Amino acid sequence: MDKGVTFVSSEQVSGEHESYVIGVDYGTLSGRAVVVRVSDGVELGSAVLDYPHAVMDTTLTATATSLPPEWALQVPQDYVAVLRSAVPAAVRNAGIDPARVIGIGTDFTACTMVPVISDGTPLCELPEYTARPHAYVKLWKHHAAQSQADRINDLAFERGEKWLPRYGGLISSEWEFAKGLQLLEEDPELYARMDHWVEAADWIVWQLTGEYVRNACTAGYKGILQDGAYPSEEFLGALNPAFARFAVDKVAHRIGQLGASAGTLTAVAAAWTGLPEGIAVAVGNVDAHVTAPAAQAVNPGQMVAIMGTSTCHVMNSDRLAEVPGMCGVVDGGIVSGLYGYEAGQSGVGDIFAWYVRTQVPARYYDEAAAAGQSVHQYLTDLAKDQPVGGHGLVALDWHSGNRSVLVDHELSGLVVGTTLTTRTEEVYRALLEATAFGTRTIVETFQDSGVPVTEFIVAGGLLKNAFLMQTYSDILRLPISTIASDQGPALGSAIHAAVAAGAYPDVRAAGEKMGKLNKNVYLPNEAAASAYDLLYAEYTQLHDYFGRGENDVMHRLKALKRNAAAAADATAPANLPVFS
Amino acid sequence: MDKGVTFVSSEQVSGEHESYVIGVDYGTLSGRAVVVRVSDGVELGSAVLDYPHAVMDTTLTATATSLPPEWALQVPQDYVAVLRSAVPAAVRNAGIDPARVIGIGTDFTACTMVPVISDGTPLCELPEYTARPHAYVKLWKHHAAQSQADRINDLAFERGEKWLPRYGGLISSEWEFAKGLQLLEEDPELYARMDHWVEAADWIVWQLTGEYVRNACTAGYKGILQDGAYPSEEFLGALNPAFARFAVDKVAHRIGQLGASAGTLTAVAAAWTGLPEGIAVAVGNVDAHVTAPAAQAVNPGQMVAIMGTSTCHVMNSDRLAEVPGMCGVVDGGIVSGLYGYEAGQSGVGDIFAWYVRTQVPARYYDEAAAAGQSVHQYLTDLAKDQPVGGHGLVALDWHSGNRSVLVDHELSGLVVGTTLTTRTEEVYRALLEATAFGTRTIVETFQDSGVPVTEFIVAGGLLKNAFLMQTYSDILRLPISTIASDQGPALGSAIHAAVAAGAYPDVRAAGEKMGKLNKNVYLPNEAAASAYDLLYAEYTQLHDYFGRGENDVMHRLKALKRNAAAAADATAPANLPVFS
Repeated sequence: MDKGVTFVSSEQVSGEHESYVIGVDYGTLSGRAVVVRVSDGVELGSAVLDYPHAVMDTTLTATATSLPPEWALQVPQDYVAVLRSAVPAAVRNAGIDPARVIGIGTDFTACTMVPVISDGTPLCELPEYTARPHAYVKLWKHHAAQSQADRINDLAFERGEKWLPRYGGLISSEWEFAKGLQLLEEDPELYARMDHWVEAADWIVWQLTGEYVRNACTAGYKGILQDGAYPSEEFLGALNPAFARFAVDKVAHRIGQLGASAGTLTAVAAAWTGLPEGIAVAVGNVDAHVTAPAAQAVNPGQMVAIMGTSTCHVMNSDRLAEVPGMCGVVDGGIVSGLYGYEAGQSGVGDIFAWYVRTQVPARYYDEAAAAGQSVHQYLTDLAKDQPVGGHGLVALDWHSGNRSVLVDHELSGLVVGTTLTTRTEEVYRALLEATAFGTRTIVETFQDSGVPVTEFIVAGGLLKNAFLMQTYSDILRLPISTIASDQGPALGSAIHAAVAAGAYPDVRAAGEKMGKLNKNVYLPNEAAASAYDLLYAEYTQLHDYFGRGENDVMHRLKALKRNAAAAADATAPANLPVFS
Repeated sequence: MDKGVTFVSSEQVSGEHESYVIGVDYGTLSGRAVVVRVSDGVELGSAVLDYPHAVMDTTLTATATSLPPEWALQVPQDYVAVLRSAVPAAVRNAGIDPARVIGIGTDFTACTMVPVISDGTPLCELPEYTARPHAYVKLWKHHAAQSQADRINDLAFERGEKWLPRYGGLISSEWEFAKGLQLLEEDPELYARMDHWVEAADWIVWQLTGEYVRNACTAGYKGILQDGAYPSEEFLGALNPAFARFAVDKVAHRIGQLGASAGTLTAVAAAWTGLPEGIAVAVGNVDAHVTAPAAQAVNPGQMVAIMGTSTCHVMNSDRLAEVPGMCGVVDGGIVSGLYGYEAGQSGVGDIFAWYVRTQVPARYYDEAAAAGQSVHQYLTDLAKDQPVGGHGLVALDWHSGNRSVLVDHELSGLVVGTTLTTRTEEVYRALLEATAFGTRTIVETFQDSGVPVTEFIVAGGLLKNAFLMQTYSDILRLPISTIASDQGPALGSAIHAAVAAGAYPDVRAAGEKMGKLNKNVYLPNEAAASAYDLLYAEYTQLHDYFGRGENDVMHRLKALKRNAAAAADATAPANLPVFS
């Protein structure tokens, strides 16, 4: 590893002269900075900035132009604003001397892509391109490249590309190649002007260090870098002749290992952040992956689930296996020296939020307010004492598609068993349970592929729902440990910063000291677990019936929906975006 | 037919001296009386009485005792109160001279059963039995005799009872024999004390005339009277030895044809109602069946759908066929001289009401109120302009089970296709459509069995939703006519009263003059119909998958729910009813 930082003395790291690191977590809607003590991981202060432009998913702010369905764009300067605002605010809140900060680390949503010219300037910052949607950041949940993803998957399957099984047999429309191919085909002029197709995780590090280093994590999980190689020119040219040199010309770049230093803080970035010029800047990373060491979960068999609007599962293993329908396996993808596995559920908290927003009557809001609770907690409390199966319902948790193990964003949600006496909170509970059944499906797929899961560790906003956690424990029949930090990803980034700064020999050692875990907070209840087995059997039968081709009604319904929308558009006044 | 009334002169029926009839419609929650002019069916006045005891489905009022799930009881004196209150009020509202009333007809929910002693006194009016749930009226929707119905069906199938196919292969837990067997097995003392097991439709006529006449309609549809015979003593004894003489001892009685006079108004009933003693009282009838002549729909091929909380379909035919899964076919079951077919959907308006009550957020109520609309109409208006299939949803309308063609009350509701952008009104529309698909399934089953449906005529509260009607027309590809009366059943009862009084030779002739129909109000839109064909294909595939045994998940979920409730009861303080 190239640490490249020499001014940290052992006195600063321990003893009376404490040193500190900054972790910055770039989420979907905001960036959060946290100040962490290097010696023990104590979080001393934090600050959050909501991105001024949030997510542009219906309208391009600069021109007020409509965007088509499934688009999701961001503005890169919003990320810089976090460095200028949240980082100094966090330092102030911590009450520490900024001179004692020895490093900064960042993590980002992924795969979130920035098209830039050679000096790192995003295309959308070039005056001639501010009105062009493809000049902006494509956020992870930009799902408009599905047809490109389909073509990539079909061709890779046909040609037997050896990287395909590393991604469970399917790459996602969210990832670098699908989004890049969409850019080429919908705005070739911009594609030609673009020098690098950069993960936002690496672009922000570029802003801090002045150097472009591509992190091993996203390069592997999202960029199809396997065994040192990208998909071949021949393969890419067969997709589209103009795409043949995509990997070579736009993607390939120097790789940095996780926990390494990407460089040092520039004078400009020091001025933005108020931190000392020259401190270590960690190689970029991903929110989910960086959380593993924050939860002291870097050993084989420890599955970390970051449960929020969606759930990402990451786990290390000392063996390379092909797990059907996982998101990917990358050598050193979580920590150097182990194979990092990733899986996910594309809708979890999002489903509960959708339900509360669209299917919950006023009286629940009123009663929750009277009880001083969130509606989510109120519905949970109403439902939690009912015996397992008492609602007579089973649901499929595919309202946002299925990321693992079916890898199919054309799937959709289902609830079966409703009667005229079904209560609002009963459907809510069925949705909670459905996400746990979805997790069990993933865990069992790992087990069945020879990658055992021995411990389930939860981070993310949903861990505060104790009933949900107990339900997961019962349904998984696994003890559940929870991260002892409200800011897992930012703490994880701080851990990587400490390693990059040389305060610890590696991420595992730093996680041991700085990570925080409450062990075995929830233990499975055998009676509930047995009862849930019956519901899980129903879930599995429906999962396979609707998800594995026996009845493709969900695909057909989405096609009908698209056709209906297209027919309606054809007869309505045009209000479509301009792409060139 | 025995008309038995002679004092009606032709001067009274036409010309300057008009005569009148009273129709009384006994619904689930109230009784409605309407005054109708004999010559042309004009409705001159009406009045409604809500039953003082409504439906006792959780608690027996007299003792405040809890009732088990699926029970639904009523108090017979509530029906008499309608005669004493609503009938004179309707006459007053009409402003007519009561002396000009020549007859009264009634219709009732079915199968609603009253256990009585030989003089017609209900068991619940005997002081020693007021605390006994089984002494009360079992309302049509009392569903607690399912296990008895299952045994009747299983044994009838096993023995090849020839009456079974007349009911589509399954009799319902709602009907006379299942409810009677439950009474015997759960309260044998009361069963022994009961002299007659009487349809409420006939009990109310008994109160008016002092004579017990069993109407041909419920005797056939609910009482398994086919080709002049009830199920045999041998069959009944095989169900339970004490049940062997049930048909002979408790059920069988003189049959009155529809439109005939059951007798004349007694002095007591004349005092209750303010009507002349001695006028004709029509044989009892059922709300749905009596509506057919009110909608001028007594010819073969005219299907009448009475659409409210549930939908009942009635249709005449000149041929006897066995239609799988229909409710029944009865010779003279709707009008004398034709085979009357009945089918039904056990949840329609009830499903929409459940959705609005449990799944619709406050803002829809607020916006509906601001627009001066019902929430139902507001949701309809929001959803109606979306192109067919634009919501990407398909639902099964089995929240209250399936009455036809699957005849399975263990089925339940389902919605498939929900996503994080699915809107409240889109699910509402999918439920509206699902009930139309359910109707199409029934219509196609009739067609496929050689009983063609050529016209679809709607009565009942739901006809006021024009979008729903157009959707039915599109999905059925049939013109839809609507009854031109808000009180179809009461008008139908009045028509039967006019026939019973001798003002018309038969129900068909009376319906021609007194019935009211708006012909072909809705015509199918071919483009919408074609688009709905695709959704109907999805509905049918799900219907057969979940309804015909390929995946019995709905049955298993109901069993899990019952087991969970039973286990919870076993550990909770006992709060169960006392049956003896």
